[in-house]
Amino acid sequence: MEIEIATIGGYEAVGRQMTAVRAGNDVVIFDMGLNLSKVLIHDNVETERMHSLDLIDMGAIPDDRVMSELEGDVKAIVPTHGHLDHIGAISKLAHRYDAPIVATPYTIELVKGQLEGEQKFGVDNDLVTMSGGESMEIGDGVELEFVHVTHSIIDAINPVLHTPEGAIVYGLDKRIDHDPVLEDPFDMKRFREIGREGEGVLCYIEDTTNAVKKGRTPSESIARHHLRDTLKSMEDYTGGIVATTFSSHISRVSSLVEFAKEIGRQPILLGRSMEHYSGAAERMGYVDFPDNLGMFGHRKSVDRAFKRIMNEGKGNFLPIVTGHQGEPRAMLTRMGRGETPFELEDGDKVIFSARIIPEPTNEGQRYQAEQLLQMQGARIYDEIHVSGHLSQEGHYQMLDALQPQNVIPAHQSMEGYAPYVELAEGMGYDVGRDLHVTRNGNRIQLVE
Amino acid sequence: MEIEIATIGGYEAVGRQMTAVRAGNDVVIFDMGLNLSKVLIHDNVETERMHSLDLIDMGAIPDDRVMSELEGDVKAIVPTHGHLDHIGAISKLAHRYDAPIVATPYTIELVKGQLEGEQKFGVDNDLVTMSGGESMEIGDGVELEFVHVTHSIIDAINPVLHTPEGAIVYGLDKRIDHDPVLEDPFDMKRFREIGREGEGVLCYIEDTTNAVKKGRTPSESIARHHLRDTLKSMEDYTGGIVATTFSSHISRVSSLVEFAKEIGRQPILLGRSMEHYSGAAERMGYVDFPDNLGMFGHRKSVDRAFKRIMNEGKGNFLPIVTGHQGEPRAMLTRMGRGETPFELEDGDKVIFSARIIPEPTNEGQRYQAEQLLQMQGARIYDEIHVSGHLSQEGHYQMLDALQPQNVIPAHQSMEGYAPYVELAEGMGYDVGRDLHVTRNGNRIQLVE
Amino acid sequence: MEIEIATIGGYEAVGRQMTAVRAGNDVVIFDMGLNLSKVLIHDNVETERMHSLDLIDMGAIPDDRVMSELEGDVKAIVPTHGHLDHIGAISKLAHRYDAPIVATPYTIELVKGQLEGEQKFGVDNDLVTMSGGESMEIGDGVELEFVHVTHSIIDAINPVLHTPEGAIVYGLDKRIDHDPVLEDPFDMKRFREIGREGEGVLCYIEDTTNAVKKGRTPSESIARHHLRDTLKSMEDYTGGIVATTFSSHISRVSSLVEFAKEIGRQPILLGRSMEHYSGAAERMGYVDFPDNLGMFGHRKSVDRAFKRIMNEGKGNFLPIVTGHQGEPRAMLTRMGRGETPFELEDGDKVIFSARIIPEPTNEGQRYQAEQLLQMQGARIYDEIHVSGHLSQEGHYQMLDALQPQNVIPAHQSMEGYAPYVELAEGMGYDVGRDLHVTRNGNRIQLVE
Amino acid sequence: MEIEIATIGGYEAVGRQMTAVRAGNDVVIFDMGLNLSKVLIHDNVETERMHSLDLIDMGAIPDDRVMSELEGDVKAIVPTHGHLDHIGAISKLAHRYDAPIVATPYTIELVKGQLEGEQKFGVDNDLVTMSGGESMEIGDGVELEFVHVTHSIIDAINPVLHTPEGAIVYGLDKRIDHDPVLEDPFDMKRFREIGREGEGVLCYIEDTTNAVKKGRTPSESIARHHLRDTLKSMEDYTGGIVATTFSSHISRVSSLVEFAKEIGRQPILLGRSMEHYSGAAERMGYVDFPDNLGMFGHRKSVDRAFKRIMNEGKGNFLPIVTGHQGEPRAMLTRMGRGETPFELEDGDKVIFSARIIPEPTNEGQRYQAEQLLQMQGARIYDEIHVSGHLSQEGHYQMLDALQPQNVIPAHQSMEGYAPYVELAEGMGYDVGRDLHVTRNGNRIQLVE
Repeated sequence: MEIEIATIGGYEAVGRQMTAVRAGNDVVIFDMGLNLSKVLIHDNVETERMHSLDLIDMGAIPDDRVMSELEGDVKAIVPTHGHLDHIGAISKLAHRYDAPIVATPYTIELVKGQLEGEQKFGVDNDLVTMSGGESMEIGDGVELEFVHVTHSIIDAINPVLHTPEGAIVYGLDKRIDHDPVLEDPFDMKRFREIGREGEGVLCYIEDTTNAVKKGRTPSESIARHHLRDTLKSMEDYTGGIVATTFSSHISRVSSLVEFAKEIGRQPILLGRSMEHYSGAAERMGYVDFPDNLGMFGHRKSVDRAFKRIMNEGKGNFLPIVTGHQGEPRAMLTRMGRGETPFELEDGDKVIFSARIIPEPTNEGQRYQAEQLLQMQGARIYDEIHVSGHLSQEGHYQMLDALQPQNVIPAHQSMEGYAPYVELAEGMGYDVGRDLHVTRNGNRIQLVE
Repeated sequence: MEIEIATIGGYEAVGRQMTAVRAGNDVVIFDMGLNLSKVLIHDNVETERMHSLDLIDMGAIPDDRVMSELEGDVKAIVPTHGHLDHIGAISKLAHRYDAPIVATPYTIELVKGQLEGEQKFGVDNDLVTMSGGESMEIGDGVELEFVHVTHSIIDAINPVLHTPEGAIVYGLDKRIDHDPVLEDPFDMKRFREIGREGEGVLCYIEDTTNAVKKGRTPSESIARHHLRDTLKSMEDYTGGIVATTFSSHISRVSSLVEFAKEIGRQPILLGRSMEHYSGAAERMGYVDFPDNLGMFGHRKSVDRAFKRIMNEGKGNFLPIVTGHQGEPRAMLTRMGRGETPFELEDGDKVIFSARIIPEPTNEGQRYQAEQLLQMQGARIYDEIHVSGHLSQEGHYQMLDALQPQNVIPAHQSMEGYAPYVELAEGMGYDVGRDLHVTRNGNRIQLVE
Repeated sequence: MEIEIATIGGYEAVGRQMTAVRAGNDVVIFDMGLNLSKVLIHDNVETERMHSLDLIDMGAIPDDRVMSELEGDVKAIVPTHGHLDHIGAISKLAHRYDAPIVATPYTIELVKGQLEGEQKFGVDNDLVTMSGGESMEIGDGVELEFVHVTHSIIDAINPVLHTPEGAIVYGLDKRIDHDPVLEDPFDMKRFREIGREGEGVLCYIEDTTNAVKKGRTPSESIARHHLRDTLKSMEDYTGGIVATTFSSHISRVSSLVEFAKEIGRQPILLGRSMEHYSGAAERMGYVDFPDNLGMFGHRKSVDRAFKRIMNEGKGNFLPIVTGHQGEPRAMLTRMGRGETPFELEDGDKVIFSARIIPEPTNEGQRYQAEQLLQMQGARIYDEIHVSGHLSQEGHYQMLDALQPQNVIPAHQSMEGYAPYVELAEGMGYDVGRDLHVTRNGNRIQLVE
Repeated sequence: MEIEIATIGGYEAVGRQMTAVRAGNDVVIFDMGLNLSKVLIHDNVETERMHSLDLIDMGAIPDDRVMSELEGDVKAIVPTHGHLDHIGAISKLAHRYDAPIVATPYTIELVKGQLEGEQKFGVDNDLVTMSGGESMEIGDGVELEFVHVTHSIIDAINPVLHTPEGAIVYGLDKRIDHDPVLEDPFDMKRFREIGREGEGVLCYIEDTTNAVKKGRTPSESIARHHLRDTLKSMEDYTGGIVATTFSSHISRVSSLVEFAKEIGRQPILLGRSMEHYSGAAERMGYVDFPDNLGMFGHRKSVDRAFKRIMNEGKGNFLPIVTGHQGEPRAMLTRMGRGETPFELEDGDKVIFSARIIPEPTNEGQRYQAEQLLQMQGARIYDEIHVSGHLSQEGHYQMLDALQPQNVIPAHQSMEGYAPYVELAEGMGYDVGRDLHVTRNGNRIQLVE
């Protein structure tokens, strides 16, 4: 059976992920993501109203024109998890394909959110849920399996396309976590099996985001312990404490909610995307928040919540807000500018359970946000975080477990690939033979 | 009562700590340390045989000549903990003072080790043990108290000299740890009492090593969780695993020993200083190692241990060795050079439970050591560590608890002081009034 | 005669410089500057309409309230050169003092520009010009001399207050340049004389901006050679070339103008502050621009100029524009956003004859500006620049020449002082004796 | 005609360069270099006595076994210039090929030096000189041309292999310098012609060492101006001044010699490789040194020279010595350790006309060397240097001039290639089509 891989998007930088695998006449698309930074650099751009071709020209969404060169029918569009760089282009591109969107339940829920916001295109692909550990038939002798992985969002999977020529493992995005919060551990056992069964692994496409980092990405439980240690150290403080983290990082939000309780404070989620992601997770039963946990997204209800906090005493609350990258319009930055009813005072604590995504724009904005907070007396606790992506030793373990015949680094720039390439070379792979350094718009024929 | 502080050593860089406090006619000396880097930059220097004046000229030990200007009698020499930068000059300087050396039991034990190695001077000061939480009378109305603190070595204290004019708190070295390993938590309660009782705190001398770091230094328990997470991730590996850490860091060594057992490996301590520090801790009951824990310091017994490991199978052992900074003659670097019977193979793991002490010499040596290890196939896991020193928010908490009338930054260069000075200024202190930016050899008269 | 120094502003960071020296009953104020970054962090602040007290609270202008503690009469306000951090607060503070503003002609011209823009206060102090090499009597036995120095703006001087107790040398801002462009070399001969004559130098207040930098700041002629080398390398390019630099850096602008001619292009200055600084320099005869050199500041005339450039062919022009720090509203950033009639094309060159002032906000903005320019095809040539401030070996030379009895580091944060303090210590000065680590609002009595 | 390129060495890191081009039956080898760092990491390795296979295993010299897969006869071995990473393996590998070594006269002279030191192999290939601008026939319709380029060593060329299918331009190593010292300018005119004539450029192999650097590498004349500015600033100093630079950098050494004279000092070259490279250049007439210029390489004659300097007064001399990277056994480091008769004093100047080659080992060693020099009172002037390699805009210009059909980045790691790949992509090249990301041991067939 002919096997071909089209590396469509996200092979030039972290961002607009999209990869297609053709096995015979059956094609499966993995991810359709958005590179938000390509949008934000322009003033006043509203993606909801934009045409896909303009977004492609901006480099914001994948240029899927190479799909016309792939002979075969698209049988499924498979977003691996709910981050924007993996689902953010579905509302712009999925309607071109007569195929269902297949994803885990939480991911599907977030895809729905995307489709509801879309104002230019009508997307009516079927939405099909499948969980980690489950499989579905894609075509003759071709099966799609979801292997449960651990990442900085819940319900992430790595899809595996089983073909007569061996398995294609699409490895975006993950870390190996044996002790995650809220979820089952990383399913290393299944990957080891896939590495050994049948024809083995024909091809492994890997998330190389953090391939430059030495060692091993710690478990989410380490961030959780660190967070608890931090909040416990503030137990005697009677003033204001504010925390921020990635809104989509439900495990982290859940830890914050739990430890707020432990130090005698009522947690409260503030900001549009805080409400969006945590609301969905709670409704679907992924997390068991306290009954009275407030979540407010609209400006007016947020302001009401802040007023209540100020009236009842800042010492009784832990607002968990948006703004971990210092985004100029996010809640925390607005608090720094004194634009909300919440008044910071000398000694109040601000916890960044996140790291700065390393890029000068973010660094500049985050610096400004911290300056504004500090001008009001706030004390800053930052970097209480672990990454959601594999570091070098995780990559080593995956290659060791899967023993793939071909390896394709993804989810990075050429510079970001480099340490992964050198790691794989150290394990016997060769560029130009079985280690494919590829870019957007290329096709790699693995079996002819 | 006249109160005067002589800032003798370690006020130009981290290293040769020494401070004297005079209360009326009674003088107490805190620390007598060695700046090892000033020795190592020279080839073939043996400090054991050197005269103190030569070591002073090299900048290796404190220049204590300013002591002759202090009127009063030295009543005690008080090393705060057993690191070389706090006890390493005792063998060269203590004999000049007719006063006992007063320290916690583990520190006294390490001081004894220093005195035994000395070949130039005969030091016969009395050695007096006193534990955290205890006090002794120093003179009329002057009392010395040891407050238990947490640091990267066990049995560390902050000495407090109570005088009629208020307390002098000597704050070197510590972090605030509410959940340390092996020890009681940091005694914040006692510091808060000292801040409020009697005349309050006249002066606070602070360990500003990490004042440049934002946020709060995590608890040792975080390093412990991280270490456990790392070792558990190697549970299925059947080849060699080697770990290194600071030999004097008994809590960390103890965690390594414990987790080696958890993953089915026999821990074994190798290297002269591993045996030295851990042997003392075990004999004195600070740590409860397994009965059969091997500790070997001499070259021959280390080689025998390595041979045994190779014979019985690397997969059954976890050697814990010296060499975390890539020191050219330490055990781990020798393993990298293939100079020991231990043979590294592709995939073997090397764990650095330490960070590089940031200085180009260390960075160069550590890089070389890692290169050598990697050339033999080793996989590197680094930075599994937390610092032993307060970061900015710990400093904020200490100043908030003690409310000292005067503050003296110590244990850093001028550049290292800077962020501490700015933090203290933000809390209302003023350079030239109550915030004393001082250098080696100065005297500060607080009460005339 | 009593000699006292009040370190009023700019002793916490580069920015709002202000220092007063009292010699007996005569007081001279050196500099009254503005820290613009303290203004820009707030949205929508118009300093022209603000009260000085509000600007003091923001940390934007010096807090001159300590002046009420200085006994004596202010005889002169002496801005050393025309940069905003040295003259930007004159319009807010000078009217409080019944004293003339004494400065070099170009500096006076820029002060006038400041006073014209002011809308809150009426400032009618006399404006007195005095050139480098000249002197005036300030009081009985007290004389003010201007020594010519070289900096990144023309007509900079270091004022020296000669008193019976020795000279007070106010060393802000300068580099030692033996081969500057447009101007006479740095007057090292005069500084050497001042170091030896009469009572010598009682006190030296020094610009420590770049004390962290090793070596010696190169001459402006090096930047000039580098710029010429760069432009000559583009001689064959027929498309658009755009350059940006500090508007106030007349020597650099002059080099750009000259080399534009050399490669057959017509230079043209665009942007409000380009017109302001270069216009003044030309009117006053400091620079001899070609007769037909266009300078346009107002939006409409700039756009007209751009249209003309597009009509007559980009290849015939070298626009020299504002925006070297990527300021969002500056000309170059607007060009990047496509908001001007100038159309960038693939291969067009953009020359930054400036370095990024190292601060995350600038770095973020500059990064954005470069991204925008590159998205339009521009090629970036950056860092064609030398600093205007002394590095370590310049500081060494100055201390060696002046042999001052007292040294006061200025124009930096505590961290910025640190390398200067260590340099001065290496030359025999001692903190707390003759090396004064001081902060805003302090007074240092040198002679009682 | 079949055209094939074998990328043999230096495609994994800067170092052991070797590339073979086959045009029909004729093969030309470009460069045979040594990666010295792979040797130095081992203690006590003497390459002179080692077998090539051991050096290949160490990664020190190119693994030329792929040559056996190339059908055709080697007609020439062409080192492009005399740096070790381009000629250092000739003594180990050239004897395997029955072909002359063809290079410019100065390069041939340095190759001779290599062959004389060799103790393991007998190399008797013919040595043929050819200068920039000349050509020779290699085979039927295949011609080898040397185009004069500018680099950090004199007499560097880029070889061009003219074939019926187009030119193969081997672009290692160079910068574009229109105003070099001692030599003719970079021959851009010829490259532009090659880009346009005949079949154009089939393939361009490029030196990507500095592709990460923005902008354009300045001319050697900028380093020269900077050096002159620095030395002139020391004109009045009467104590010791010492300079160091790359021994092989004859233009730089020549500038140092010239400016020593200008400030009234006698230059003198000290250290084995100083004598080696400068001696050859002088004998061959590339540089016109003063008649009495001393050059001493042997330990005893160096010590005699130092004694003479001390006797006649340090102020009369400028020793130009080895040791710019802080190499532990180089002359300058020995001076820092006080191991030579030259005594450094407070205020003596040390000029590093070089930058640290960025690698932790170098950084550590250089730091140590500077510490030792400063402990003796020396003042450090560093980074008076420009690179010998193209930066991004030079790469842009070369691609624009040559318009090659295929591009192969070389002389870097994968990470080092990355910015070059992104630059080439921005100009329309595609990885996997005409932009070849390749590694050691690969063959690329361009014409079948």
